[in-house]
Amino acid sequence: MAATKAAKGTSKARGATQWVYVFGGDKSEGGSGLKNLLGGKGANLAEMSNIGLPVPPGFTVTTEVCTHYYASGNTYPAELAAQVMAGVAHIEAIVGAKFGDPRNPLLVSVRSGARVSMPGMMDTVLNLGLNDLTVEGLAAKGGDARFAYDSYRRFIQMYADVVLGMEHGVFEDVLEHRKADKGVEGDTELGAEDWKWVVAAYKEKVEEELGRPFPQDPAEQLWGAVGAVFKSWMNQRAITYRRLHDIPEAWGTAVTVQAMVFGNMGEDCATGVAFTRDPSTGENAFYGEYLINAQGEDVVAGIRTPQSITIAGRKRSGSTLPSMEESMPAVYAELARVRLVLEKHYREMEDIEFTVQRGKLYMLQTRTGKRTTAAALKIAVDMAREGLITQDEAVLRIDPAALDQLLHPTLDPKAKKQVIARGLPASPGAASGIVAFSADEAESLAEKGQAVILVRNETSPEDIHGMHAAKGILTTRGGMTSHAAVVARGMGRPCVSGSGEIRVDEKGGFLTAGGVTVKRGETITIDGSKGEVMLGTVPTVQPELSGDFATLMGWADGVRRLGVRANAETPLDAATARRFGAEGIGLCRTEHMFFDEGRIVAMREMIVADSEKGRRTALAKILPMQRADFVELFKIMRGQPVTIRLLDPPLHEFLPHSDKDLAEVAKAIGADVETVRRRSHALRESNPMLGHRGCRLGISYPEIYEMQARAIFEAAVEVSRETGDTVEPEVMIPLIATRKELDILKSAIDGVAEEVSKATGVTFKYLVGTMIELPRAALRAKEIAETAEFFSFGTNDLTQTTYGLSRDDASSFLGDYQRRGVLERDPFQTLDTEGVGELIRIAVERGRGSRPGLKLGICGEHGGDPASIAFCEEAGLDYVSCSPYRVPIARLAAAHAALGKKSS
Amino acid sequence: MAATKAAKGTSKARGATQWVYVFGGDKSEGGSGLKNLLGGKGANLAEMSNIGLPVPPGFTVTTEVCTHYYASGNTYPAELAAQVMAGVAHIEAIVGAKFGDPRNPLLVSVRSGARVSMPGMMDTVLNLGLNDLTVEGLAAKGGDARFAYDSYRRFIQMYADVVLGMEHGVFEDVLEHRKADKGVEGDTELGAEDWKWVVAAYKEKVEEELGRPFPQDPAEQLWGAVGAVFKSWMNQRAITYRRLHDIPEAWGTAVTVQAMVFGNMGEDCATGVAFTRDPSTGENAFYGEYLINAQGEDVVAGIRTPQSITIAGRKRSGSTLPSMEESMPAVYAELARVRLVLEKHYREMEDIEFTVQRGKLYMLQTRTGKRTTAAALKIAVDMAREGLITQDEAVLRIDPAALDQLLHPTLDPKAKKQVIARGLPASPGAASGIVAFSADEAESLAEKGQAVILVRNETSPEDIHGMHAAKGILTTRGGMTSHAAVVARGMGRPCVSGSGEIRVDEKGGFLTAGGVTVKRGETITIDGSKGEVMLGTVPTVQPELSGDFATLMGWADGVRRLGVRANAETPLDAATARRFGAEGIGLCRTEHMFFDEGRIVAMREMIVADSEKGRRTALAKILPMQRADFVELFKIMRGQPVTIRLLDPPLHEFLPHSDKDLAEVAKAIGADVETVRRRSHALRESNPMLGHRGCRLGISYPEIYEMQARAIFEAAVEVSRETGDTVEPEVMIPLIATRKELDILKSAIDGVAEEVSKATGVTFKYLVGTMIELPRAALRAKEIAETAEFFSFGTNDLTQTTYGLSRDDASSFLGDYQRRGVLERDPFQTLDTEGVGELIRIAVERGRGSRPGLKLGICGEHGGDPASIAFCEEAGLDYVSCSPYRVPIARLAAAHAALGKKSS
Repeated sequence: MAATKAAKGTSKARGATQWVYVFGGDKSEGGSGLKNLLGGKGANLAEMSNIGLPVPPGFTVTTEVCTHYYASGNTYPAELAAQVMAGVAHIEAIVGAKFGDPRNPLLVSVRSGARVSMPGMMDTVLNLGLNDLTVEGLAAKGGDARFAYDSYRRFIQMYADVVLGMEHGVFEDVLEHRKADKGVEGDTELGAEDWKWVVAAYKEKVEEELGRPFPQDPAEQLWGAVGAVFKSWMNQRAITYRRLHDIPEAWGTAVTVQAMVFGNMGEDCATGVAFTRDPSTGENAFYGEYLINAQGEDVVAGIRTPQSITIAGRKRSGSTLPSMEESMPAVYAELARVRLVLEKHYREMEDIEFTVQRGKLYMLQTRTGKRTTAAALKIAVDMAREGLITQDEAVLRIDPAALDQLLHPTLDPKAKKQVIARGLPASPGAASGIVAFSADEAESLAEKGQAVILVRNETSPEDIHGMHAAKGILTTRGGMTSHAAVVARGMGRPCVSGSGEIRVDEKGGFLTAGGVTVKRGETITIDGSKGEVMLGTVPTVQPELSGDFATLMGWADGVRRLGVRANAETPLDAATARRFGAEGIGLCRTEHMFFDEGRIVAMREMIVADSEKGRRTALAKILPMQRADFVELFKIMRGQPVTIRLLDPPLHEFLPHSDKDLAEVAKAIGADVETVRRRSHALRESNPMLGHRGCRLGISYPEIYEMQARAIFEAAVEVSRETGDTVEPEVMIPLIATRKELDILKSAIDGVAEEVSKATGVTFKYLVGTMIELPRAALRAKEIAETAEFFSFGTNDLTQTTYGLSRDDASSFLGDYQRRGVLERDPFQTLDTEGVGELIRIAVERGRGSRPGLKLGICGEHGGDPASIAFCEEAGLDYVSCSPYRVPIARLAAAHAALGKKSS
Repeated sequence: MAATKAAKGTSKARGATQWVYVFGGDKSEGGSGLKNLLGGKGANLAEMSNIGLPVPPGFTVTTEVCTHYYASGNTYPAELAAQVMAGVAHIEAIVGAKFGDPRNPLLVSVRSGARVSMPGMMDTVLNLGLNDLTVEGLAAKGGDARFAYDSYRRFIQMYADVVLGMEHGVFEDVLEHRKADKGVEGDTELGAEDWKWVVAAYKEKVEEELGRPFPQDPAEQLWGAVGAVFKSWMNQRAITYRRLHDIPEAWGTAVTVQAMVFGNMGEDCATGVAFTRDPSTGENAFYGEYLINAQGEDVVAGIRTPQSITIAGRKRSGSTLPSMEESMPAVYAELARVRLVLEKHYREMEDIEFTVQRGKLYMLQTRTGKRTTAAALKIAVDMAREGLITQDEAVLRIDPAALDQLLHPTLDPKAKKQVIARGLPASPGAASGIVAFSADEAESLAEKGQAVILVRNETSPEDIHGMHAAKGILTTRGGMTSHAAVVARGMGRPCVSGSGEIRVDEKGGFLTAGGVTVKRGETITIDGSKGEVMLGTVPTVQPELSGDFATLMGWADGVRRLGVRANAETPLDAATARRFGAEGIGLCRTEHMFFDEGRIVAMREMIVADSEKGRRTALAKILPMQRADFVELFKIMRGQPVTIRLLDPPLHEFLPHSDKDLAEVAKAIGADVETVRRRSHALRESNPMLGHRGCRLGISYPEIYEMQARAIFEAAVEVSRETGDTVEPEVMIPLIATRKELDILKSAIDGVAEEVSKATGVTFKYLVGTMIELPRAALRAKEIAETAEFFSFGTNDLTQTTYGLSRDDASSFLGDYQRRGVLERDPFQTLDTEGVGELIRIAVERGRGSRPGLKLGICGEHGGDPASIAFCEEAGLDYVSCSPYRVPIARLAAAHAALGKKSS
């Protein structure tokens, strides 16, 4: 902002606001530093002009005019008219033509330009300044009446469409009519007279529709176009786009007015677009297309096939059309020089637009080029090696979220596909398999070697084995953070959730969607990156991780401060996490271990028991299995910390609901049906999320946590004996609301540790800490930290309680909330730094206040979200923990956060 | 504390701790100001001695010795022994007898005494100092061997019981054996030789049981008794009592050692207890009982019938036994004088114990007398009028919670009753009626003029009409804050909740409890103050509110700062609230208005509609009914503020669940069954408390809130036109989490207000505010207050979310929590000032920070809880709102809070 103010002062009298910035010739007032004021397009045109590149002269009306326009009831600042006219004069002086001069008319383009490229707004009006008189001047000047009238009709068409708000179909009808009359197919076959006729017909249509003639005064045309740009800032499509991309309305748009250059004045003219490197692969090779004798829109329209600008490109595409390198070697050489200048100047891969008018190259646009994640990686690493950018900059060039693309199999983009339904892109990657409608079915099919897609209305912890067995998961209900979505992301399974178009008939064994019925055993494909469900098998491709990936991640690890752990409980997940660079386990959810066949029976026996003795008998059966789990986990993670959360979900999650299933349970555990039913009934809860779960189970049934603590400590002793490694488990107690809960439970755990130590003769270290997942725990962190040796922020539950918002139920109205602008982002995906974040900051401050070295981490879904990781860095946490497949994302995001903090 | 330190310094050398305080004679070191140090008993004995009342001399071992004892592994301070012996010497000097002197023995009593009276601890050892030698001295001195040996055996019995820990049945057996041998029935028929024999047998039993003889050394006896008092501080009963009554363990107990006086040395001796006023009615009349020739324990034991101390008392009880006024007129006159001295000195109704030894009166205890609430009221008002206390003190004398007793019908205490089950005392008062097992049944029976008790497993908003129709409510599930309990308290209906012993068979039309079956149409009685369920009709009495009640409430209103409003929506509730002195409605829950027959159909139509248009059609039917509700409410409350909360519960609460019921709904609203079922299914939620409810409905279905706002404003206009009153409705939006929600909804409400104003030509004032019931709203209060014109703290939901604790589900484990000492009180009954309270403080500060005059209230259940009201006073809220029947309690509690703040 300081720069803006300074720049403003240079060319205008003190006190008066500079609303217009000129560029071109030897006088450019702006530059790429003024993007906020001039928009991306205007700023970069000025910048290119500043560094001596050939840019047609022009001027930019600032974004502040847009702000003024909306703040003052759609009026312009008083000084604007004079400043715009001065801008026009600036162009006239350089081009040597006059706006509205019938003999030597200046034509201009008018373009919108916000800070960031924004589809949905008015784009461009070309050839502005043409009217019934100047068209003749243009014809005379260039000696080409056909070109002049073609330009005029293009102008009327564009202007009527984007400024006057007419349907452009009206004009197409006129054109088709003329072509039919003349018996021709292409526009090129029409001559000057035809275009004259078309212009007359167009003007008639305008007058017919609007009740007034097409504006002939170039100044009126100019103000009309400028106004249209500003109005387009608030049209519905622009508003929607801004909401989706977090662009503040206050930014406003600039308007750039620039002298026209023509790529369509003959065979020595051309127009084209190029990238300074290959945007698909990142290869350091010039990459672009051009068309001879064409205007920019012709390249996009796809009527003629564009030609490669380089010989190498032509060869690669197998085209016979000459490359620019061949057809216009001098101009190509100039363009290649421009490419190098731009890369050196911007230190980025650029996306450029250019026009060649009568053998002379003009640059019309440059901006940062979009690229695939793979290309981004290669470009960043290459540029750092080339010395164009630093390693830190290379790290910052990669969007952490985009890494996801590299880590999961994706659909072959060339394959055909029949989409039968859409849902939410809940867990990335693609998978094909036969449909199974229950977890058991999925598991038994998988055991027979079948690839399975598990299809459920929604999933619950009871479905875990089926989810593990399946290649992908599809649900008809639930959002991006539903059980299915969270677990699938944790497992690295593709998942499409909340696909409301699908109706599942589990009993009938089929699903219907998009008019198609898929029966049990038939195949579908899901694309969890896009949220699509397809009929049959669509081939996928397994991405390979390049050496550049490892290089960049190494650089990232070098700068990040935050540790990165994984949420994992199975050996497979733990191994994946290590492979992706996790530095430990931040959340091992022990309940997932109880759903295994064999264990669930003992677990249910425990739940149904009506005395402590009965529960202890059942728990004694679970102990060796649970211990074996931990032995395996400690071995995989050897040397790294493992945080184990004691039993968290309410007990009714372990019991089935139907009478039939309850009867089976009764039989399995040798209990009376009525007893089982009564217990199941008694455990039912109105709001299980806020019910008898977490440490509340530990208070009611101390024997459960004691068994788990015993399993952990005995496993630690066993592994340290066997491997010689030091195993230091971190025992984590969920859902603490008061210090007293923790005091009681920690003392029981300490007691078990002492017993195990005594019985085995081995002394070992361990930590006892707590989840901070309730507002009260955050507020009382000072006293809780007097007992807790670490905090792990359970931001899923903390978000649920802080917002009073159920993750499972929110999907029914979060859509309304985003549509009405209440929430910009799903708070379960990106941490609400204002509300939940304040509680975290409070807990950090108070917790460290009473225990200075308190270890702090986060283990909610947010631990893998880049924006949330930036918050964790700021809040001073020690580590984030996320699902194994998000570990690389978290590592990179942590590096970004560290670099962002360094620079701020 | 300052007073304590100062007092300590007076009689001992600087630096040494004074562990023992003497009283009696002309040297009393303590007084009633030292209750913390000397316990209630010791402090008051010293105090009585100070003001010249006849108190046998003694000394008190301080509570600090108890603290030292537990802090240092059950040992005493080094200086204690010497200080105790000095205390004994003090007694000896005054009494003129010596501890352990075989000829002239001093006997003492040893009593425990904490700051407050605490059952469960060691109470008293009398006659300490007797042994085989001193018993003879006692006999010789008094010339009464029978008395001496009776005293000795009493001592052994008590000492063995409370100090040596022997079963006292052992001694009763010996005594019974002797009586049988002698062929006598009463103790009085035994002579000196018999008691000698008994003493010998007792000693034998002690030695037999403990392996050592009964201690003969008086000093050993004394230390044994002192130690027993301290040990009893930590016995299980004392611990439990402390937990139940919020008494900190750190307080400790004192021990008082006092010279014995005997009421059992002959016909000129007596013992008795008295109240300085009538503890049942509060009448200013001396009230008490005495026994001639008896020890204190005989009065309590009930073997002999105690006699009234006054002639009036004797006449009233119709007794023929002479009153003390008649039998011992001189002593009575002295006692009557003591009564006046005590009342004047303590400015309280006192509960006293006295002994008359050989015609001389000795005071053994005075303490504040317990009394019924009615008596408390009368005594407080009388004493203020008598000038003994100020009006403020009178206000502080009444426990607000105890007022509840006065406001509800109670069971006739004289009636017989057969209790068949117990549950929680969820809503006070008693009621009888025939059992009904559904709301519809209750309603139709009530319409036929039947008194009904509605019996449900649990209630839901659908049962409201049945609850209204019933005289009382009984549930088998749910706690003190379950739906049934909350609604019943709001309606002033008695309720017993969570009576797990009852099994309801709705289909069969009967309930079973305590081995009894009660069929549909049979009568039960419930006592919601005690949580009892009784067979048949138990007669009740309707309490009358005395003039003292109105007087005291007037004084309370004069000092309180907090406003008191009521939570009410029906005309009946609103009228009750006004009658009890409410100053407006703080919470009118509009959803309760939708369950009425006729409305529920339109409501369901609205819910099932799949378009805004359909919803608007249904809402148009509800509008006139809702408007009529508000017209009635505004008329009743004329001139007072009415806060109306827009629709809050999730929509599925308005739909039934079973397929059969859904089919009926479909028929009633003329919709397709499948549509209704699908809608009901789609609305189902995992955690409805955190679901699509509150303002979230307003965001998704703006038309609902618009209809409600219209009904409110149109009613306001209608009533102001009709009555000339100014009606200023306060529109309250529930469950706000973000400012944006409120912005959107307030702007819609403002729009409706403008329309109504335009259509009616009437301008009116109104406020739009919000509930603060989510942690996030409290944290973001600053920005929310930029839009909200008032805040009302919804502490029920705020407690649920801050603790992550469902009110409906917590009952399953809150018992464990209280048992294990995690929670001292149910946070849904008494506000958690540390967690929830901090959020309220934050919201108050931030809200007033951005809107200085922001009106602040509370409308959760806590609004009627005295401890929580004290917090509201401290937090600076403007008013509390509670159920109508708690309004007087809140008024009084608010006065207490204001006075408490003034004095602190």
